[in-house]
Amino acid sequence: MFEFELIHEEGQARVGIFNTYHGKIKTPVFAPVGTQATVKTVTPDQLLDLKASLVLSNTYHLYLRPGDELIASLGGLHKFMHWDKPILTDSGGYQVFSLASTRKVDDDGVTFRSHIDGSTHRFTPEQSIRIQENLGADIIMAFDECADPNNFEYIKTAMDRTHEWAERCLKARKRKDQALFGIIQGGIDPNLRIRSAEFISNLPFEGIAVGGLSVGESKQDMYNILDTLEPHMPRSKPRYLLGVGTPEDLINGIARGIDIFDCVLPTRLARHHAAFSTEGRLNLMNASFASDPQPIDKECQCYTCKNFSRAYIRHLVVAKETLASTLLSIHNLYSLVNLAEQIREMIKSGIFLDNIPNLLNTWGQNSKRKIQVM
Amino acid sequence: MFEFELIHEEGQARVGIFNTYHGKIKTPVFAPVGTQATVKTVTPDQLLDLKASLVLSNTYHLYLRPGDELIASLGGLHKFMHWDKPILTDSGGYQVFSLASTRKVDDDGVTFRSHIDGSTHRFTPEQSIRIQENLGADIIMAFDECADPNNFEYIKTAMDRTHEWAERCLKARKRKDQALFGIIQGGIDPNLRIRSAEFISNLPFEGIAVGGLSVGESKQDMYNILDTLEPHMPRSKPRYLLGVGTPEDLINGIARGIDIFDCVLPTRLARHHAAFSTEGRLNLMNASFASDPQPIDKECQCYTCKNFSRAYIRHLVVAKETLASTLLSIHNLYSLVNLAEQIREMIKSGIFLDNIPNLLNTWGQNSKRKIQVM
Repeated sequence: MFEFELIHEEGQARVGIFNTYHGKIKTPVFAPVGTQATVKTVTPDQLLDLKASLVLSNTYHLYLRPGDELIASLGGLHKFMHWDKPILTDSGGYQVFSLASTRKVDDDGVTFRSHIDGSTHRFTPEQSIRIQENLGADIIMAFDECADPNNFEYIKTAMDRTHEWAERCLKARKRKDQALFGIIQGGIDPNLRIRSAEFISNLPFEGIAVGGLSVGESKQDMYNILDTLEPHMPRSKPRYLLGVGTPEDLINGIARGIDIFDCVLPTRLARHHAAFSTEGRLNLMNASFASDPQPIDKECQCYTCKNFSRAYIRHLVVAKETLASTLLSIHNLYSLVNLAEQIREMIKSGIFLDNIPNLLNTWGQNSKRKIQVM
Repeated sequence: MFEFELIHEEGQARVGIFNTYHGKIKTPVFAPVGTQATVKTVTPDQLLDLKASLVLSNTYHLYLRPGDELIASLGGLHKFMHWDKPILTDSGGYQVFSLASTRKVDDDGVTFRSHIDGSTHRFTPEQSIRIQENLGADIIMAFDECADPNNFEYIKTAMDRTHEWAERCLKARKRKDQALFGIIQGGIDPNLRIRSAEFISNLPFEGIAVGGLSVGESKQDMYNILDTLEPHMPRSKPRYLLGVGTPEDLINGIARGIDIFDCVLPTRLARHHAAFSTEGRLNLMNASFASDPQPIDKECQCYTCKNFSRAYIRHLVVAKETLASTLLSIHNLYSLVNLAEQIREMIKSGIFLDNIPNLLNTWGQNSKRKIQVM
């Protein structure tokens, strides 16, 4: 189990299959985020229909509500949310550190206050693993400290702590049916990143995650760090870039050897009426779509684009109908799931690297084809 | 076209098939309400999956937003909302009369203010037909005046006006592919109702609708009026009870010869976390469901009940996830669509009348099995 079959490489880009107890994950892959045990506004059947193969859920949120023990008593997260394919949970580290003023870190763990009711809680590496074992995802994460990338002095402290915690997580795990991934930290300091990559890579994790990126640094800094890290990560293990997943990041990340991505962007954009498209990002609230009979994206094969016009979706947005969020979420999620799949096929044919400029031109933030409506 | 095949009768209850340009409607039937060209929180595919065969949409709302002419220019309501089965539109009469203080009725029509932006508009019988022809539903309604059932003096005025408007609607219609239904009014005065039934039945409508019920009168008054009306409505035309559709009303209405029902209740209850069930109405916000592994209703075959626990739906409600509304809407809509289908089979077997007490015991508001959580 947890074998990672590397099928094809083109430059640093890789095509693989990661085997889990709930099925094979074809990489590169984009994982929709289901923070509270639901990918917002879509059903599991709609996720299957848009070809999602891996869903992420958040340990911090599920621990607080409804509680990991409740989920365990109901048969685990797969059964709870009716998703029989692979699930990945984060460690709760990133969420806890996002709480800024209401948390206190020490070498043993973190004490924090619930964003729901202000009650006090404590996460340690052992506690994070225990919660993730209760939830029962196929891929779980070591507990890490994600420091502010601009706080250069603190970054080393956080990295050292992440390394100690990584070892404690490996020791604490009991279940054999979950792949445990270690997390590389080190901010945007190349030397710290290399040290962290080598430390984490030398531990018996089933996969390697890159944390602490897309947290305030520039895009170029992020890509530089990925370039720095690539030669120091084992080829034989899947690599996961935590919380990153704009279309542009997907293209650039895959080119730098990343296999797994997740991001709340597709569903968050949907709730703000925005859609990815090969014409650039569209805001469906825009009056210019009021009588537009075209689908969001003529080239898209999702349920939304096959069946509904921009005019209809704009009507739903203006009328404040939640079906707008559902249809936009389906489209945005499909766009990224399908982009990863398209790139997978390109790598297999050895044409991905040559196509990066085209892909970025079509999907990138700076695409000339972008209609600036956001 | 618009043939109504009466297949079987048991007492006053009827099983039929109504033929429209978008397919056959098996009656008795419950029509989900898609006020703004969407049944709230569910996709057309989910409506097909829960076996809906007829959807109602509101002329008043679509006229104001996005506009009936826009919908016509995009190919009509079926294409706009991606629903290729029969659609019914109301006349706008009921909605306009609900505006109370901001509308003014005269013998020619009604002047009213938009609830969206306060702008002034006018509906006449001719205008209502023109809008409904633009929308292009399979079943359209004559423009009527729905008076307060407790305003006995005014009811006759409104009824007479409804009769004049019925004749004007028949004259105004141009399309041949829409079934036009006349509407019986007359409040809760049996004599007026009989006069109205006879007047409307003598006009060349393709179906007969009963308006002005479930608007403030008692349930018993409503059932008495249906009893009064039944012998005065033609057997050969489908009969539609406007805006009525609790499970109890469905059972009692079918027993009194009604074929078509619609009601916003299933989706409205869903947004308030409530579900129909054979154990009575449940409120999924209730803490007693927090760890309940059962489906909403063990006897239900809907997508929600086949795949999700009460505990999961309660979690979604508490976490304010809109998937709760979707799953509850699917369940509530299926419950009524399926109840109509079950009764249809019972009538065909001649066992419906004997089963009314059982059905009311299971589904009625006053069911002893009801868990009082609403």
